Amino acid sequence: RQYKNLMHFLVEDWFISAMLGIITAILSISIDVGIELLIHLRNHLFEISKSYHESMGFVVWVSYITFFVWASAIICYAFGKQAVGSGIPEVKVIIHGFKMKNYLSLKTLIAKVLGLTLAMGSGLPIGKEGPFVHIGAIVASLLNKATSACRFNSFFSNEGRSMEMLSIGCAVGIACTFSAPMGAVLYGIESTSKYFAVKNYWRSFFATTCSALIFRFALLFFVPPHIAGTIMAYYQTNFPNEVFVIEEIGFFVLLGVAFGLLGALFVYYHRRISLFKKRNRAFKSVFGNSPISFTVICAALFAVLAFPDGFGTFFAGKMTFHETLVDFIANCTFTMSNVSNNGCPPELVERWTSINGFHPLMTLSLYFTIYFLLVPICIGLFIPSGIFVPCFVIGACGGRIAGELIAMIYPDGFHDETFIYPGLYAVVGAAAFTGSVTHSLSIALIVCETTGQLCALLPVLISLMISNAICSFLQPSIYESIIKTNGYPYLADLPPSRISVHQMKIEQIMIKDIVYITRDTTYWELREILLQTPNLRSYPFVTDKTSMTLLGSVARKYLVYLIQQKLGSEADMFAQRRNDQTSSELFISLRQGSQPMLTDRSISGSTLLPQSLLHDDQGENGPLASLLYSQNEDTTPIVHSMAQKVELLSSKVDLIEVAIDPAPFQLVRGTSLYKVHTLFSLLALNHAYVTEKGRLVGVVSVKELRETLNNIYSRGAVAPRQRVRPINDEENALSS
Amino acid sequence: RQYKNLMHFLVEDWFISAMLGIITAILSISIDVGIELLIHLRNHLFEISKSYHESMGFVVWVSYITFFVWASAIICYAFGKQAVGSGIPEVKVIIHGFKMKNYLSLKTLIAKVLGLTLAMGSGLPIGKEGPFVHIGAIVASLLNKATSACRFNSFFSNEGRSMEMLSIGCAVGIACTFSAPMGAVLYGIESTSKYFAVKNYWRSFFATTCSALIFRFALLFFVPPHIAGTIMAYYQTNFPNEVFVIEEIGFFVLLGVAFGLLGALFVYYHRRISLFKKRNRAFKSVFGNSPISFTVICAALFAVLAFPDGFGTFFAGKMTFHETLVDFIANCTFTMSNVSNNGCPPELVERWTSINGFHPLMTLSLYFTIYFLLVPICIGLFIPSGIFVPCFVIGACGGRIAGELIAMIYPDGFHDETFIYPGLYAVVGAAAFTGSVTHSLSIALIVCETTGQLCALLPVLISLMISNAICSFLQPSIYESIIKTNGYPYLADLPPSRISVHQMKIEQIMIKDIVYITRDTTYWELREILLQTPNLRSYPFVTDKTSMTLLGSVARKYLVYLIQQKLGSEADMFAQRRNDQTSSELFISLRQGSQPMLTDRSISGSTLLPQSLLHDDQGENGPLASLLYSQNEDTTPIVHSMAQKVELLSSKVDLIEVAIDPAPFQLVRGTSLYKVHTLFSLLALNHAYVTEKGRLVGVVSVKELRETLNNIYSRGAVAPRQRVRPINDEENALSS
Repeated sequence: RQYKNLMHFLVEDWFISAMLGIITAILSISIDVGIELLIHLRNHLFEISKSYHESMGFVVWVSYITFFVWASAIICYAFGKQAVGSGIPEVKVIIHGFKMKNYLSLKTLIAKVLGLTLAMGSGLPIGKEGPFVHIGAIVASLLNKATSACRFNSFFSNEGRSMEMLSIGCAVGIACTFSAPMGAVLYGIESTSKYFAVKNYWRSFFATTCSALIFRFALLFFVPPHIAGTIMAYYQTNFPNEVFVIEEIGFFVLLGVAFGLLGALFVYYHRRISLFKKRNRAFKSVFGNSPISFTVICAALFAVLAFPDGFGTFFAGKMTFHETLVDFIANCTFTMSNVSNNGCPPELVERWTSINGFHPLMTLSLYFTIYFLLVPICIGLFIPSGIFVPCFVIGACGGRIAGELIAMIYPDGFHDETFIYPGLYAVVGAAAFTGSVTHSLSIALIVCETTGQLCALLPVLISLMISNAICSFLQPSIYESIIKTNGYPYLADLPPSRISVHQMKIEQIMIKDIVYITRDTTYWELREILLQTPNLRSYPFVTDKTSMTLLGSVARKYLVYLIQQKLGSEADMFAQRRNDQTSSELFISLRQGSQPMLTDRSISGSTLLPQSLLHDDQGENGPLASLLYSQNEDTTPIVHSMAQKVELLSSKVDLIEVAIDPAPFQLVRGTSLYKVHTLFSLLALNHAYVTEKGRLVGVVSVKELRETLNNIYSRGAVAPRQRVRPINDEENALSS
Repeated sequence: RQYKNLMHFLVEDWFISAMLGIITAILSISIDVGIELLIHLRNHLFEISKSYHESMGFVVWVSYITFFVWASAIICYAFGKQAVGSGIPEVKVIIHGFKMKNYLSLKTLIAKVLGLTLAMGSGLPIGKEGPFVHIGAIVASLLNKATSACRFNSFFSNEGRSMEMLSIGCAVGIACTFSAPMGAVLYGIESTSKYFAVKNYWRSFFATTCSALIFRFALLFFVPPHIAGTIMAYYQTNFPNEVFVIEEIGFFVLLGVAFGLLGALFVYYHRRISLFKKRNRAFKSVFGNSPISFTVICAALFAVLAFPDGFGTFFAGKMTFHETLVDFIANCTFTMSNVSNNGCPPELVERWTSINGFHPLMTLSLYFTIYFLLVPICIGLFIPSGIFVPCFVIGACGGRIAGELIAMIYPDGFHDETFIYPGLYAVVGAAAFTGSVTHSLSIALIVCETTGQLCALLPVLISLMISNAICSFLQPSIYESIIKTNGYPYLADLPPSRISVHQMKIEQIMIKDIVYITRDTTYWELREILLQTPNLRSYPFVTDKTSMTLLGSVARKYLVYLIQQKLGSEADMFAQRRNDQTSSELFISLRQGSQPMLTDRSISGSTLLPQSLLHDDQGENGPLASLLYSQNEDTTPIVHSMAQKVELLSSKVDLIEVAIDPAPFQLVRGTSLYKVHTLFSLLALNHAYVTEKGRLVGVVSVKELRETLNNIYSRGAVAPRQRVRPINDEENALSS
């Protein structure tokens, strides 16, 4: 048995994690090489055509960028629009237990890989870390499917494994982007999970270590040396160990405050753009049905703007994020060029001085402003695009500006033999801005791993903590913001320190007007109930109308079956009716513009509570199967006379005990909204009955919770208006 | 309202976390200064006395060490024995929701601080990280108590905060020991939690950042410069960025395998010693009641062994762990001294060459062997002592030996201009050994932060992953091993890849012989049931004996009340009886040698399920209060005639609906042991009913689970023998 354990250990735990890390790393390296070649080709073509004629260069430049962005958009359109965008919000939603169709398919993987290569190869200001998280998740999911095919005899056990694998996939995705194995694991956890099983995270570690190894090998053997530097995504800095003095901490705090506010502004601005695109009539009438045309127009505009011999000269339009980032974090001072040893080499300064002889600070400020305004538009285009790297570069630019200013004010530092290192400020700024936009703290570690130095850790942490706190107080993270505007079924995190979530109690948000079934319910009443509430999946079962003690819940399916058994004639009126309603009125309230890709709530997912078997659609295997499916066998339809029917309808419903789920999730009255939120997120609950001393007093579903927290950032928790009928139509809207 | 939110945010979230970090950092610095002064004093006294006479030096040396260890033990004895040992196992148990008396009191804090200073000041080979985790947790708990005193009007909300604070306290404790703010957060999570709420971990980050800042300030302003280096616990290495070549990865893998096996051996050896001390009759008869005398004897033996001019000369007996560690990770090669540029400076080599002119490798091997054998004994003594630092040093020594050997075999490295850096192997070995003994991966990050360099990350990760996997396959972590030998009520983690936990189903471990109450139970039967099972807290309530559909559970308290109401005469026989039994037979089975400090299971703790209010002892406020406490009011005892009594006893029990908890935790038949374990750990469950299609078929409690998993490492999961009566006496044993 020990031998079998060991085999299991090696194959299941190690081999699959290793494969995941290795495959994703290879994909990453291929994409990087592809992007690098495309960028190289662009610059090469541009130089050649420019040598013929100036305008020729312009045409080639603009058409090159426009063409590749168009190609990327077309691929996304052809293979599946699931490949569009960052992917992190969707992976987040999936990890929290909702199934999203085709988001983890091979087709999406291909579209994402090709689309990303083309889009980034064009030079558009987008990042690759979001798509990579998505790619990692897809690889994980495919690997999982592949192995589950050869699972037999519980040798390959699959309990909760698929979600684990997804989480590992995310970590590996990040690890491949930043060559930061430790930070990636943390980021993967932070950006995708709410609660995290500690015992599983060594798998993420192992997978990221494998991909780091692959990078190391690839660098030695496969990658052409002239682009090796870019592939590693490794920005080695060369600060001395004593890179800052105590006096500078004040500046780091200020930087944190500034980037916290800027981060909140960035998220807000990005959301306004998304909402504008969704809601503005003029925009919709022009681009409503063709996201590609808008994407191409934006790409063309960007190309014109960034044209290296035109306006682009003012903000280094030709350089990629990678190149600018290297300049930003360089251990030298722009403004001290030719003055002291700390000055930057002239060729570096030259890159940041336009032909007109602008001061580097002017160029930097222009760069900062333009990308701050452009990036939120570009990451919303119909192409795969990451948010992380652009934010990182914008933050580094901002930090560099601050650092240069401080270095100008204190050219000799604070003490003897200490200097201001603007490169350090760039690193701090990058971490603080990215941290505030994405609400993650692991960025501190990623920054350190990416720069290969730990001496900046303390300044980075100080700035990051402050900017993160400010932004998370003011705005949700950009991923949650996207989730919200897309209307995905996801329970957002609570912002810190809202007193209202502690003060508000469950009875304020629950639906009090409950539809229930008692022991005395007649078939007539049951029929009415079923007809009136076509969108419920289960009904509470209470003792009687006066005491209202909750005994359990009953699945709609079973009730429908009961009615049908008694009144065979109405065989499919319920099913019909139900479909009609869900597709017409219910979906709209939820979707509000999102693509119709939400499918049934996942059961196996991160749902940690063993969901009652009675409510699942398990086909022939469920415990109710014998009841529900036996109906197919008695082929003769039951025909009753009118009198029989009336008699039947007025008799009491004869629920058999088996059909009652005796343990629906319950919360007691007086539970605070904070606790309700914690439980719903942790257990991935859908709805819960509210009881008071055993008496059923209400029901709360994810929908009520979401409505209550809708304006949490601006107005705090607000109890939703009481509606008349729907109890937990949330789950139905999802299950159609 | 926004202003109030902001205030709340600043005070509650920030101020308290900051205070926690600052207070713990100050404590840490004070202790470090104290230890340093004591060690200095020891060496000074030793030198002076030696100058009089050689034997005088011996006497002073031995008595110094013995005296301070004795003083430390006496303090622990006087202030409370809760201060003894590492503290991490206890904090782990507390965080998982069990209350342990006095473990988080101010008295224990004082004892721990003083005891640790004295014990470490004597020079005993123990670490300070475990006690510091405990100290951090105590500070957190005290801070929490202090603020909860001024909580009013829900301004200071306290939902689940105390456990969060504990977790932060642990992280801060580690951060103070290693000046590793990021790694500490991870280690705090890893070593204390099983499931972790991501939204709370920024508090840990903030607190550790604050303590890192304090360290930085202290270094500048308060600490005398000659001991500043030791205080920071900062072992800056100076490896080049390309510190290893691809060819060396094989060695790192081998190192990982070796240290994984050694780690498992270490844990096993430590457990054997603990069990020997607990079980051996001869040992018990000598030292049974006086742990102090054993401690003093061990200290004296260590002092004799380590006497610098005696046997200690063979293994650098005079040096503290801090000093040896600096030598181990030094970027030079012992065996190349005087040969090449990479050789170590002569004074360093001299320290590791005994008077007899031993080869440094001999000295290193002796050091490794002696401390490998001594440390498990020392950390089991009656003083506060950490496990982490000694393991770290032992691992570094082992790694250094391996590195030196490899450097001897390949004196010129593998390529041109590359060398073998034995210091790197020491770093890798330290991480691998510590990681395998404590089952933690965050050690990779701690190592990098402590050495201030990231270039060793990949080798460290490779070795660490392998050693960790091997050790966790063979043995539990040292903390879980301590928890097990001390018999704390804690559900240990599952080792990886045991097929048996997937194959075994809940029905194999559940207790099938259930005591239950039906609708038809008479008072007579109820009375019998209550008398026969004095150790249950709740009873399942089912419909009838044949269908056995679970309707809910009823608290024993209520049933006793019911009986008492009917039969006033037997007023306190149940309470009496119950106490008798719990103290006599039940406690023994659980405690098995542990101190009687286990109190009632915490309700608020990490228990995420809203526990039914009906089963809690909420005094006057619970929903049953009106029922249970009204009894005190009708002062006249009910006296029945015999005939009345018989009639009463044969009538059916009249349970009111309110008293039934309709939602006890249920699991369906066929749930695998793996899933059961996950749910029990996640939700901190105590027991769960097993149902099959609504029919009650059994009950499982933590006790059964623990018994099943008792020999998981050696024999896999084994179903416990079915006992006759006790169902969930686990909770009772704890609640006495």
